Amino acid sequence: MFCGFTTDPKMYRWECLLLVLPFVIGRGSAQDTCGYKKCAALPVKPGYVNVHLVPHTHDDVGWLKTVDQYYYGANNSIQTAGVQYILDSVIPQLEMKPSRTFIYVEMAFFYRWWQEQDGDMRDRVRKLVSNGQLEFINGGWCMNDEASTHYNAIIDQMTVGLQFLNSTFGECGRPLVAWHIDPFGHSREQASLFAQMGFDGFFFGRLDYQDKANRLKYRNMEEIWRASPDDLGAAADLFTGALYNHYVPPGGLCFDIGCKDQPIEDDMALHDYNVANRVGIAVNTSLDQVQHFQTDHIMWTMGSDFQYQAAHTWFKNMDKLITHTNSMADKHKVNLLYSSPSCYIYHKNKASATPPGVKFAHNNTADFFPYADQPHAFWSGYFTSRPAFKGYVRRCNNLLQVCKQLEVIGAPKFSDKVPLPTSKRFREAMGVAQHHDAVSGTEKQHVANDYAMRLHAGAVECQVITSMTLQQRMVKAGALPPVAEFCNYLNISVCPLTEDEFTKSFTVTVYNPLARRRTGYYVRLPVTGDAYAVNDPEGNNVVTQVTKVSQRTQEIRGKRGKAKHELLFPVSAPALGFSTYFVSQSQNSSRSGKQPKAGDDQEIHNEHLSLLFDGKTGLLKSVVNLETNLTLKVNQGFYWYNSSAGNNKASNKKSGAYVFRPNSTEAMPILPQQSVITSVVDGQLCQEVQQSFSPWVSQVVRLYSGQRHAELEWTVGPIPIKDDLGKEIISRFDTDIMSDSTFYTDANGRELLARVVDRRLTWKLNQTEPVAGNYYPVNSRILIKDKSKQLTVLTDRSQGGSSLRNGSLELMVHRRMLYDDGYGVGEPLNETGVFGEGLVVRGKHYLLLDTPESSGQLHRALGEQLYMAPSVLLGLAGGNDPKQYRKEFRTNYTAMKRELPSSVHLLTLEMSEDETVLMRLENQLQKAEGGAPQNVTLTGLFEPFEVEINTVEELTLGANYPSTMVQRLAWNTEGGRTKSEALRCWDSGSATVSLQPMQICTLHFKVQQRD
Amino acid sequence: MFCGFTTDPKMYRWECLLLVLPFVIGRGSAQDTCGYKKCAALPVKPGYVNVHLVPHTHDDVGWLKTVDQYYYGANNSIQTAGVQYILDSVIPQLEMKPSRTFIYVEMAFFYRWWQEQDGDMRDRVRKLVSNGQLEFINGGWCMNDEASTHYNAIIDQMTVGLQFLNSTFGECGRPLVAWHIDPFGHSREQASLFAQMGFDGFFFGRLDYQDKANRLKYRNMEEIWRASPDDLGAAADLFTGALYNHYVPPGGLCFDIGCKDQPIEDDMALHDYNVANRVGIAVNTSLDQVQHFQTDHIMWTMGSDFQYQAAHTWFKNMDKLITHTNSMADKHKVNLLYSSPSCYIYHKNKASATPPGVKFAHNNTADFFPYADQPHAFWSGYFTSRPAFKGYVRRCNNLLQVCKQLEVIGAPKFSDKVPLPTSKRFREAMGVAQHHDAVSGTEKQHVANDYAMRLHAGAVECQVITSMTLQQRMVKAGALPPVAEFCNYLNISVCPLTEDEFTKSFTVTVYNPLARRRTGYYVRLPVTGDAYAVNDPEGNNVVTQVTKVSQRTQEIRGKRGKAKHELLFPVSAPALGFSTYFVSQSQNSSRSGKQPKAGDDQEIHNEHLSLLFDGKTGLLKSVVNLETNLTLKVNQGFYWYNSSAGNNKASNKKSGAYVFRPNSTEAMPILPQQSVITSVVDGQLCQEVQQSFSPWVSQVVRLYSGQRHAELEWTVGPIPIKDDLGKEIISRFDTDIMSDSTFYTDANGRELLARVVDRRLTWKLNQTEPVAGNYYPVNSRILIKDKSKQLTVLTDRSQGGSSLRNGSLELMVHRRMLYDDGYGVGEPLNETGVFGEGLVVRGKHYLLLDTPESSGQLHRALGEQLYMAPSVLLGLAGGNDPKQYRKEFRTNYTAMKRELPSSVHLLTLEMSEDETVLMRLENQLQKAEGGAPQNVTLTGLFEPFEVEINTVEELTLGANYPSTMVQRLAWNTEGGRTKSEALRCWDSGSATVSLQPMQICTLHFKVQQRD
Repeated sequence: MFCGFTTDPKMYRWECLLLVLPFVIGRGSAQDTCGYKKCAALPVKPGYVNVHLVPHTHDDVGWLKTVDQYYYGANNSIQTAGVQYILDSVIPQLEMKPSRTFIYVEMAFFYRWWQEQDGDMRDRVRKLVSNGQLEFINGGWCMNDEASTHYNAIIDQMTVGLQFLNSTFGECGRPLVAWHIDPFGHSREQASLFAQMGFDGFFFGRLDYQDKANRLKYRNMEEIWRASPDDLGAAADLFTGALYNHYVPPGGLCFDIGCKDQPIEDDMALHDYNVANRVGIAVNTSLDQVQHFQTDHIMWTMGSDFQYQAAHTWFKNMDKLITHTNSMADKHKVNLLYSSPSCYIYHKNKASATPPGVKFAHNNTADFFPYADQPHAFWSGYFTSRPAFKGYVRRCNNLLQVCKQLEVIGAPKFSDKVPLPTSKRFREAMGVAQHHDAVSGTEKQHVANDYAMRLHAGAVECQVITSMTLQQRMVKAGALPPVAEFCNYLNISVCPLTEDEFTKSFTVTVYNPLARRRTGYYVRLPVTGDAYAVNDPEGNNVVTQVTKVSQRTQEIRGKRGKAKHELLFPVSAPALGFSTYFVSQSQNSSRSGKQPKAGDDQEIHNEHLSLLFDGKTGLLKSVVNLETNLTLKVNQGFYWYNSSAGNNKASNKKSGAYVFRPNSTEAMPILPQQSVITSVVDGQLCQEVQQSFSPWVSQVVRLYSGQRHAELEWTVGPIPIKDDLGKEIISRFDTDIMSDSTFYTDANGRELLARVVDRRLTWKLNQTEPVAGNYYPVNSRILIKDKSKQLTVLTDRSQGGSSLRNGSLELMVHRRMLYDDGYGVGEPLNETGVFGEGLVVRGKHYLLLDTPESSGQLHRALGEQLYMAPSVLLGLAGGNDPKQYRKEFRTNYTAMKRELPSSVHLLTLEMSEDETVLMRLENQLQKAEGGAPQNVTLTGLFEPFEVEINTVEELTLGANYPSTMVQRLAWNTEGGRTKSEALRCWDSGSATVSLQPMQICTLHFKVQQRD
Repeated sequence: MFCGFTTDPKMYRWECLLLVLPFVIGRGSAQDTCGYKKCAALPVKPGYVNVHLVPHTHDDVGWLKTVDQYYYGANNSIQTAGVQYILDSVIPQLEMKPSRTFIYVEMAFFYRWWQEQDGDMRDRVRKLVSNGQLEFINGGWCMNDEASTHYNAIIDQMTVGLQFLNSTFGECGRPLVAWHIDPFGHSREQASLFAQMGFDGFFFGRLDYQDKANRLKYRNMEEIWRASPDDLGAAADLFTGALYNHYVPPGGLCFDIGCKDQPIEDDMALHDYNVANRVGIAVNTSLDQVQHFQTDHIMWTMGSDFQYQAAHTWFKNMDKLITHTNSMADKHKVNLLYSSPSCYIYHKNKASATPPGVKFAHNNTADFFPYADQPHAFWSGYFTSRPAFKGYVRRCNNLLQVCKQLEVIGAPKFSDKVPLPTSKRFREAMGVAQHHDAVSGTEKQHVANDYAMRLHAGAVECQVITSMTLQQRMVKAGALPPVAEFCNYLNISVCPLTEDEFTKSFTVTVYNPLARRRTGYYVRLPVTGDAYAVNDPEGNNVVTQVTKVSQRTQEIRGKRGKAKHELLFPVSAPALGFSTYFVSQSQNSSRSGKQPKAGDDQEIHNEHLSLLFDGKTGLLKSVVNLETNLTLKVNQGFYWYNSSAGNNKASNKKSGAYVFRPNSTEAMPILPQQSVITSVVDGQLCQEVQQSFSPWVSQVVRLYSGQRHAELEWTVGPIPIKDDLGKEIISRFDTDIMSDSTFYTDANGRELLARVVDRRLTWKLNQTEPVAGNYYPVNSRILIKDKSKQLTVLTDRSQGGSSLRNGSLELMVHRRMLYDDGYGVGEPLNETGVFGEGLVVRGKHYLLLDTPESSGQLHRALGEQLYMAPSVLLGLAGGNDPKQYRKEFRTNYTAMKRELPSSVHLLTLEMSEDETVLMRLENQLQKAEGGAPQNVTLTGLFEPFEVEINTVEELTLGANYPSTMVQRLAWNTEGGRTKSEALRCWDSGSATVSLQPMQICTLHFKVQQRD
């Protein structure tokens, strides 16, 4: 050890801390030998190639089978996979030999198994965790997808897993390393989030084959990823390693019961004695691999999908491999040892700091999208696959945040009396849905159905919580108001309560989950009557508009609904609070809508925007920002790529759930002979143009009074496949913006990354797929710009998007194929929907036109509003008139005494299992968007309770570790040494949270209820 | 318990013994709770259907993979099967829960695993054996085939396994039940042998589908098999059960890691909760199955091929199945319990004796051949499959007996100095070779090669033992004689030593393993010279004959040999002893051989027989017994069946390794245009007719001076398949015997069974395959007879045989097919041989013609001589002339002071591990063949040692249990109660063994060396 002897006292600091202050990295007992303590004791040998064998299993939280089926090992005709057996069989194997190690990753499975164990087994497991043999890595509820997940959901799912580990195992259960070995490409934001969670490193398995070849050549498979170069800086630096052999064992050395490699046959009396051969493979592989890495330490991933169901086959043969190889180590200088990713990192860190030292590259500010595993196989199809499910996941995130908030601000006394469900099931379902074969859309159909069902089951409980909590908050004196409920099919104008012809009046309660007042939100409800009067919470009349239910909506909803009209009116609601509106049928008809005149250009506008549609084609042809007078020349339409059936010369790769591969670089337009415009609505609140491009592609373009954006509601499907052609549908904006081959997409809803056509930041691309190879994930927004103007399109779900030509911007909204792409799903992505004809998907794009300088704040604010939209609950008024109702019940409520600044987002407000409140505040503006430091004082912030300031503790992003204790491994890089300490946000003296641009502050605290 | 309360004091005797004299059934310690003690403690419930769950694995000792590959789990691309993992994983599972049980069967695997375990694991296993959780069933080295095995080899392989168990685990390791769940048909002799081994019962899985349907209907799946109705009687009675569900678990309840059935998902929070469904299957299956059985006890075989590699998947789910089913047992009256075949039998025995009582059927004196699992799928092809290997196995048995004898009679002082190899490896290789996918010929080609290699490796060691032991016994004073060695390719006239042109003289040492002098054995050796002088051990001249090496032999041996001639001379050798002959080249030519005259009938004869061949066809047309003047009109020729390719209307079943299915009921003759005779040899010692039927079918018919039988040496192959037709070749004798649709075949070389065309003894047959459905295994002999004469044909290996028409008798000698028959082998049985063209097989048929009365003793004596033929060793004389050699070395030796009576066969003489000598004597004549009781006194019987009479202990046939202690379960049958005690043979007072017809007496004893 060098502590005290080195001239630079800062060197090896963490290691010295380990020696003198073991509690710094451990809240466990003194006897614990987990974590780096364990690592330090491993039998590494200086001067040898130290091969860290990492016994691991990769357990998809649903893919070919449902998560239940995977857990139990049911439905094994699809895949022999039963996670219960993995844990059942690994534990005794670890106990048999103290040198053996194992890592476990997916908490959705581990948690379930843990629940089934008795006290004895739990003690046995705790012992293995304490002594470091069983180590949790990553520790999220799932191993989330990185392309189609929203950061809010990523943080939530990590929190569910990490907090379970923390409460169950304490410090020894804290994962030190992030582990995304299977996701199909890697977002920079994911790395940033991991860094903020305090991880010491991050490993993944999949990166572009060209990128990998380069990295192997230049020995930079491992580097320091600068994941938030412009905002968080050093705080988001993360040691990141691309795995040498995907995540499987070296060729020939797979010892799982399902593997075909030869076991080690070491009975010398046998003809099949093969020790020399087996050891030879191990040695040669090691000597080859070490050439591509910077130190004498290399790592082998000893496991794969659902392996270790019969753990003894693995450990017995690994024991032998280690013994026999090491017994001859004097000759070949290869030393095999059981290890873990964290121990590998520990020793790598130690070895790289030893003279002559290794400076890891620090130049990666790019990400790892799109992923291609071979020419013509770009995994950019799943950015869009299963758009309906992707949309549902985003909506569920919205509801879950509402639900969790209400668990905190709900009245505890009330819920003591009436036992409420909790958000637990929904949190877990959302955790499962973030899995890289869930929201990604790359699961089998029956599994997708199962995910949706799980979300629904969780959502129902959260809707009950929401409804009952709000109901309680409505109470003024004693009586409870009528129950209010959600209408879940408003997107197709179905709501039994409002469309019933006997419903003459009803209440509309709008809960706003933002930490500031929400105004100008439009409620659109299916109704039967021609005219309605709406009173706001104070009894004032509200302007309304009644429009006909569109033809396409009527077709889609079929017999599920019968409303003739949609009632539209604007609402507002206070921060973390609700407002109740009163709706009753009236006599005055206020319907609007007109047939467009053929040949004439059509114009709609509001205070902010004017949209012009071509008289001949009916396509949007210009957008004018009426404030700035910026004019965008545009041609917006729908196009389709013909999915490759693998039948062309270049390659037999097909488009499928993962892979996007069009047969041609040109998308074909979807356009009728005459104008696409079928109807124009010229209402007081909303002007809209209804477009029909084909029987299965339509769009409504809307301008709402007071809104700065245009809303384009697209409806696509059933995609016809009778012509035996797979189709991938895009909405494309061809504009006059001089975008210079560059466009911008967000990473998981947070920071924006620049994308340049046919170019990668870190290596010279040989482009094989000019379309698919330029597709990137769009989680929330995509934009192009030139010096004067910027077109920003926000989405309501994750989609693939690109800009293939200057001024052009496209988003893939739906896809349907006839072939499987050969990566295991075994099904073409052919969603047939409930009625078997093909799925109809409806979604929205939100268009902003402004200067580049002003656009940032605009799209950040809009983005926040979209994914944290109000919850709308409908209640029968119960014979009350509005006046009577207002007298009896509260129609306005806010849980906040002060609103948060406009750039501060209340990312999390939830109850933890230990009855503390977990809160996250985020500065949601990048510096480049005008972001500036923000302060929030917690004293007197909330209405129902006071934060007990002396209990406030600042945590890492995963909410499982105090930020004060973070001492991440530091690395030498070309740009200096990386930072060990966490970025801090809490000042207890002033009771103030301070936030740099893009910083998230995670706190937990006890509260003092005011009632 | 009923002990003491029943009116019949003999009832429940064994059970009472259990209570008062626990040592009677156990030599283990008093704490042991194994065997029936364990059974008595099982939670059976009167009034319930008691379902005995038997966790088991069926581990083929080679089939698709070699036995090494199966043990280690190598070559898993063929089959995921590794026996080491089964035992590794079962042991901890048993330890986890005392109610869990497991049975293990194949000692070839268990022994190997045991050798790899450390003391700790051995103690753990011993504990599980002692407490009855781990029970050995059957306990042979393998689960032997029953159709193509010889009883000598069966007894040997059982002994290797059972003695290992006895010496390792004592009484608790003694299997109580025999278990042939997979062999493809069941011989009566096998049941008889099992009964003599002291087994309480026998279970098997495969029986004719029609037979099974009947037995299910009439509830006689279980009965008392009278396996030696005419000779051993009650001593060979055996409780025998055909398993309900082959040997696999009930449909839907397979919980192996490789199974696709649903696990028990008992987390009520899950959507997939399926306890009711799983329990429903268990209950319904139980209630259905019990309808077909005689008591409330039924058995489920919970396992299958190579299952339990991940034992936890089985036990976890069985635990749940038992718990959940039994928790509702009050409703459905089904009680599941972990059990074993022996416990099932125990409770069945107990329950059947309880009033009103069950009398098991006792009428089965038939066997279970041939086996058909469906119409048109008779598994009678494997009776012949791989004829070369079948022949090699028989020859190896011969060598092994010689080798074991010499280990006993060899001089211990000598072998102390020169450490000899032992017969251990050969015993084990022979044990493996008896497996039901080994000698059966139903393994993959690479596995067949492996079996042969193993036998060869063992044989080499035994040839060294034989050579060195004999060499030592040749020593008179001090000098060792020249080493004598085996020539292993005499069947194709290849012997480097004798055919070398520089070898002018050599010794021929003949060791006779029979317990009486062998005379008139002919040695036939390839030589270069024209004439040879041979001196017998006393120096007398011996008549010799030199004949040309036949054309066909020259073709077959190719470049492997160069001898022009074969030297023939008769030898004799004393009981368990050797004689050395001295051969030297001389000048007198003694060649014989002549070209037959076309058109003339050809006659050859000796003192006993005259054979007449048709002048036109060249076929054998009559046989005359010159002593009795019996004349057999006969037409003997070769024919072929065209193997079905599964392309006909009746069925798509194909001929393959298992199944014999000819395309037509008529076999096609293999006959040239002119006479088949190519040469006639008219020698002084041997007259022979050489026949060529086609380029690939030839035969030599020989009459040796002094022999009562004619020898027909057939050479068949390479079977041509260029016409894409599979072919199965038979030798057929069409005679004038009025055989009345009846023929007789032996069972495993012991008792004869009558076979009636298109008829089964125990059920009315619906014949679907008139040829294959009438084929039976012929292990050593087949015969047809009428009142005056009997044609008996003995074989040198196991073959399929039949008599499809009156007076006809056929034996299938070789087969080659183009298709797999679909039972797993996955290869057509297409033996290509060393040179790739197809395998040539040469073998012999031995023809006896005599009266039915006289034939029995004749064919028994001949049969014994054939499978216990002398070993012939060749040595360079080392410059000695015969006189000099006789002066220096012993040329005669016998280890016996008295010969055994002609009907008493010395079946076994071998050293046991505990240094005692194991000996078996057999009365080899059936009563019907003139068998009568025989006595043998052991005092002064052997030359090199004296039996210590006071140490003689009589054992069961498997040599693992004292006969005195045998108390088999007794059963009520329609014919009375079965016998518990073993048939005894040893009288210590007179030191005499007495043997009833067909009785085998197994003894072990210490010996006092005379030197």
